[in-house]
Amino acid sequence: MTATAARSTEPDTRTRLLNTALELFTRHGVEGTSLQMIADAMGVTKAAVYYHFKTKDEITEAVAEPALRRLGAIVREASAMRRRGAQIDHVLAGIVDMVISHRALAAVFSSDPGVARALERSLHGEENVKDCLTELLVGSSSNPASEVAAHVALAGIALAGGSPALADMPDDELRAHLLDAGRRLLGRPRRVSRG
Amino acid sequence: MTATAARSTEPDTRTRLLNTALELFTRHGVEGTSLQMIADAMGVTKAAVYYHFKTKDEITEAVAEPALRRLGAIVREASAMRRRGAQIDHVLAGIVDMVISHRALAAVFSSDPGVARALERSLHGEENVKDCLTELLVGSSSNPASEVAAHVALAGIALAGGSPALADMPDDELRAHLLDAGRRLLGRPRRVSRG
Repeated sequence: MTATAARSTEPDTRTRLLNTALELFTRHGVEGTSLQMIADAMGVTKAAVYYHFKTKDEITEAVAEPALRRLGAIVREASAMRRRGAQIDHVLAGIVDMVISHRALAAVFSSDPGVARALERSLHGEENVKDCLTELLVGSSSNPASEVAAHVALAGIALAGGSPALADMPDDELRAHLLDAGRRLLGRPRRVSRG
Repeated sequence: MTATAARSTEPDTRTRLLNTALELFTRHGVEGTSLQMIADAMGVTKAAVYYHFKTKDEITEAVAEPALRRLGAIVREASAMRRRGAQIDHVLAGIVDMVISHRALAAVFSSDPGVARALERSLHGEENVKDCLTELLVGSSSNPASEVAAHVALAGIALAGGSPALADMPDDELRAHLLDAGRRLLGRPRRVSRG
């Protein structure tokens, strides 16, 4: 039985499994989390986990899938825009929105070396979404200053968004400040002017 | 025999061990690295590793120690300054310098959940250096915008500095651009004015 078939028959267990995995990834890193730990945290046997996923890489991929699909859409939408400013604004707003919707996920997936490796193994063939996002922010002409600013913005927004120190800040407030930080970094004017 | 005694009798093996550990931490994360992996990578027995360090936490602490000591010094120096601008400049320059001197280390230690945990376990009692750095950048008055900007700056600079995508950029160039990004984020004027 494939994971897809399992998903259609038992959506709740699968969702619960992915939520549990994300929670453990956040606390222990992906490499520090085992299938057994996931089973224990859910109060099920390891066999029950195997019913849905054969490897931890499959779980990592499934946890990341909706976010990666959304990032891919942002890349396509921004690529179709003609003005550089509009491209940057679209990428920034898209990333900040995603970080806000998945605060914990953002921090794990942008920083954990185990995730990058797992996704590389399973998604070879697909374009590297992070590289595409960086390119959109940097622009076509090679410019080291913009390149560094784009990396600081992407990593900084993802990690700050998932930071436990900012966990109590309301979504709207954090969204506005992350956007502002990104715009300042990338030399875009402030969004809401007072004039 | 304590780790300190071992260090004085066999400095080369200890240094090689810490370098190997850092390399494996970068590739597999701290939680994904075992003492056995470190021994294998060095071509020695696990007993040889145990001679220097009893646990992986001890290794993590030893790898991080010089950087943490330097960060502690930056906090003390900046705290003794009276002007806010000077404090921010000192913290920013200090962090960027450290990131540039230890590109790989910076990325691992700012993002890996295993490191934070290991350091917490071993350094309880010491003040949390990262919190102190953030506070110095934010200032005494609570300001959510500055707080978010400080988090974006610290995480962004550390991760961009350790990013494989920027590994080919010369140190001086990367340092200048990271400083610039940090200053823009924190509302500081550019360092070298043209006038």
